[in-house]
Amino acid sequence: MTQATRTQSTAATFTALKCKECGEEYELQAKHVCDCCFGPLEVKYDYDAIRRTVTRQTIEAGPNSIWRYRAFLPVATDNVIDVGTGMTPLVKSHRLARRLGLKNLYIKNDAVNMPTLSFKDRVVSVALSRARELGFTTVSCASTGNLANSTAAIAAHAGLDCVVFIPSDLEAGKVLGTLIYNPTVMSVHGNYDQVNRLCCEVANTHGWGFVNINLRPYYSEGSKTLGYEVAEQLGWKLPDHIVAPLASGSLFTKIYKGFKEFVEVGLVDDKEVRFSGAQADGCSPIAQAFREGRDFVTPVKPNTIAKSIAIGNPADGMYALEVARKTGGNIESVSDTEIIEGMKLLAETEGIFTETAGGTTIAVLKKLVEAGKINPDETTVAYITGNGLKTQEAVQGYIGEPITLEPKLEAFERALERARTLERLEWQQVSV
Amino acid sequence: MTQATRTQSTAATFTALKCKECGEEYELQAKHVCDCCFGPLEVKYDYDAIRRTVTRQTIEAGPNSIWRYRAFLPVATDNVIDVGTGMTPLVKSHRLARRLGLKNLYIKNDAVNMPTLSFKDRVVSVALSRARELGFTTVSCASTGNLANSTAAIAAHAGLDCVVFIPSDLEAGKVLGTLIYNPTVMSVHGNYDQVNRLCCEVANTHGWGFVNINLRPYYSEGSKTLGYEVAEQLGWKLPDHIVAPLASGSLFTKIYKGFKEFVEVGLVDDKEVRFSGAQADGCSPIAQAFREGRDFVTPVKPNTIAKSIAIGNPADGMYALEVARKTGGNIESVSDTEIIEGMKLLAETEGIFTETAGGTTIAVLKKLVEAGKINPDETTVAYITGNGLKTQEAVQGYIGEPITLEPKLEAFERALERARTLERLEWQQVSV
Repeated sequence: MTQATRTQSTAATFTALKCKECGEEYELQAKHVCDCCFGPLEVKYDYDAIRRTVTRQTIEAGPNSIWRYRAFLPVATDNVIDVGTGMTPLVKSHRLARRLGLKNLYIKNDAVNMPTLSFKDRVVSVALSRARELGFTTVSCASTGNLANSTAAIAAHAGLDCVVFIPSDLEAGKVLGTLIYNPTVMSVHGNYDQVNRLCCEVANTHGWGFVNINLRPYYSEGSKTLGYEVAEQLGWKLPDHIVAPLASGSLFTKIYKGFKEFVEVGLVDDKEVRFSGAQADGCSPIAQAFREGRDFVTPVKPNTIAKSIAIGNPADGMYALEVARKTGGNIESVSDTEIIEGMKLLAETEGIFTETAGGTTIAVLKKLVEAGKINPDETTVAYITGNGLKTQEAVQGYIGEPITLEPKLEAFERALERARTLERLEWQQVSV
Repeated sequence: MTQATRTQSTAATFTALKCKECGEEYELQAKHVCDCCFGPLEVKYDYDAIRRTVTRQTIEAGPNSIWRYRAFLPVATDNVIDVGTGMTPLVKSHRLARRLGLKNLYIKNDAVNMPTLSFKDRVVSVALSRARELGFTTVSCASTGNLANSTAAIAAHAGLDCVVFIPSDLEAGKVLGTLIYNPTVMSVHGNYDQVNRLCCEVANTHGWGFVNINLRPYYSEGSKTLGYEVAEQLGWKLPDHIVAPLASGSLFTKIYKGFKEFVEVGLVDDKEVRFSGAQADGCSPIAQAFREGRDFVTPVKPNTIAKSIAIGNPADGMYALEVARKTGGNIESVSDTEIIEGMKLLAETEGIFTETAGGTTIAVLKKLVEAGKINPDETTVAYITGNGLKTQEAVQGYIGEPITLEPKLEAFERALERARTLERLEWQQVSV
C-alpha cells in the first residue's frame, strides 16, 4: 500500500484542551490560550484507552511515517495528510563520536524529513490534518522559514489555501522554497517576534487556521514523534541524554512529553533522561535564564546567523528551563563561528549537511562534552532539525573552494599536486 | 535497532561480471568494459539461490532502506553503508492527477532521498559499499552535481578519501552541497562529457575507485531499487506505465531490470510495463534517435537548464531506446520553459519541490497525456529524482514574489487587498 492510504484506523483518544497552568478544560476547538489565566492550552488524552489498544506490534505494523503513532496525535479522522513525514534515520555515529570522545552517540536526522527537510513537517502534518477536520479552508503561519516551507508544501498537497508570514530578512533558499508552492507570502519588515505579534492579531480578525497560533495545541503535539521514533529506533528504549535546539522551546518540551507518554502506556521502561538545550549566543534568552538561575525568560532582540531558532521571546521558554533543570541537563549557547564549525564538523564526519540550527546543536554538544557535562558512555541523541541547502549563505566563504583545471590529464596531475600541497599546508598548520 | 545495524545477513548472490554484448564473463573486480568487444559489463546473479531464500516477508522484515533488497545488490559483506537511503514515498497523486486527467498517477519521490536528496544516493551507497570490500581507500566520480553531493557525503560518513570532478558551470547549490563534506573538488572547464573522458584517463593511471567508471557495474545496480520499491509499495504489483528522466540512460534500463528480476524470482506477477523517457530539448540525443527511428544515438552538445541530465553522449542511450521501443513506451523532450512549468506544477499540486530533471519528467508526462500516449486509467508512476533546493537559480525570476509590509494590522489589511487584486488579475488573464 502507499504512504497515503495505509493509515491505521483508531478511535479518537484525545478528549479536551487543558490549561497547562490552571488546569481549566476546553472543547477541542481552534484555541490556544486559557480564558481564565492566559496559560497555554495542551491536548489531553485518555491514556487508559491508548494502553488497551496500542502495543509495540501495532505501531510497527503502522505506516512508515509519524502516523504510526496516530493514537498519540490529536486528529480524529482516518483521512490524515500523510506525505511520508517522519521515521527519519537515527544514525549511530562513528566518526563524529570518535572525534568528540563519545561511545554511544546517535544523530536523529530530520535534515531529510519529508517533504520539506525539517522537523516542521511533523507539526504541520498534524496541524493541517486537524485544521481540515475543524473546517478551515485557509491555513497560515508565522515563520522563521522552515515552517513556511512546510505549511506551503503540505497545504498545496492537501489543496488548502495558504498565507504565510515571514520576516523580510530570511535566507533566500527559505523564501524560494516557500514561493515555489504558490501560496500568498507576506514578507514583514521586522523580526520573528514582530511577525508573530501581527499574526496573533490577524488570527483574531480572519477565520484562518494559524498552525502555530490558534491551532498551536494540536500543532505542537507533532513534535512528540521525535521522542517516539528515537525510543522505537533504539529498540524500544529511552536514551540517557538528548541535545536539541531551543527556539520557542516547544520541540524540547514535547520530546519530553513523548518519552513520558511512552512510559505511561507501558511501551518503554521508565528511566532518567537528561535534556540539554542549544541556543545561539545572538539569541539565547533561555540559556541566559538557565545560567543565571532564573525561572523566567527575559526577551532579547535576535542577532545571529541561526535564523530558524532566532526567537527572542520564546513562548515555551519557561517550560524548557524547567525540563532541563529537573532532568539534570544543561542549556548552553555558542557563537556564530562555532555554529559554522558545527555544520562543517557534522558534514565531514557523518555526511549530514544541516542548517544553522543543526550546527548550533553540534557545537553545543561539543561544548558540553568538553566541559565534562556529557558522560562518554551515555547513550546520547543529538537532534538535527533542518537541511543545510536552505541556509547556504551561512557557510559560503567558510568552506573550501574547487580546484579549477582544463579537461586534460596533465592539467589534472598539476591540479592534484596543488591539492596535495594545500593539504600538507593545512596539516602543518594543524600541527603547529 | 538503528538504520546502521539492522541489515539482514545474506550469502553473496552475485557470481560474475558479464558483457552485455558478447556474454564474456569476468571476475568480480573493478572493471567496466569487456576486453573482447568493448561492451559494458553487468553483474550476473544466481537467481535460483535468490528464489530459495528471498520472499516478500523476508524483504518486509528487512531494514527501511535499499538494503532490504540486499540479495539483489552486488555487495558481499554484511557491513554495508546504510545511511537510510531509499524507501522514499510513493505518493498517490490527487491534485496533479486531476489537473492532467489521470486516474491512477503515483509520484516516486526521490527528491527526499537520504542523505543528499537525489536517487544518486542509491547507486553511491552500493558503489562505496563495494569499493570498500574491493580495498579502495580513495573514491571518485565524474558528476553533473547530484552524484558529487552523494559521493562526498557517503564517503565522509564511511571515512573514505574522496575526489570529485564536476563541470565548472554547475549550479551553486550543487557545488556548495559537495564542498561542505570537505572532499577534493576538481572543477573542470568543459561539459560533463569532457569531464567524464578526463576521469576515464585518471581511472587508468591512479588506483581510485570511480563510482561511475571502473565501479560502474556495481554502482548502476543501485538504480534497480527504484523498481523494487515501486513494486513493493504498489502492494507487490508492477505498474502499467513509468515515466523517468534520461541522462546516461542507466536509471531507465535498471528500473526495467529490477521489474524483470522481481518477476524472475516470483515476487510479482509478470505484466507488460510501458517505459517512457524524458529529456530536455537542449540535450535530447536519445529522444531524437527515438523520433527518427534510429537504433544508435548521435552525441550532441548540451545546452539546457536541466544540467543534471545534460549528458550529450549517453553511455546507455542505446539500451534505453531498446527498452522504450520493446515495451511500447515513448521518449519525448521538452523546452526549458516547459521544464520550469513542470517544476511549478508539481510543487503547487503535490507540495513536492523538484529540481530541473523532475520538471522535465512532469513536463513530458503532461505532453504524453495530451498526445493520448498515456491512458487515463493506466497505473502510471512518474519518477522524481532530485530536489529543487539544489537548482534554485533555475526558477528564480519565474515564481511569484512576497508581498512586503510593515508589522501592523492595517498594513496587513492593505497587503491582503493587494494580494486579492493580483489574484483576480491572474484569474482574468487565465480566462481571457
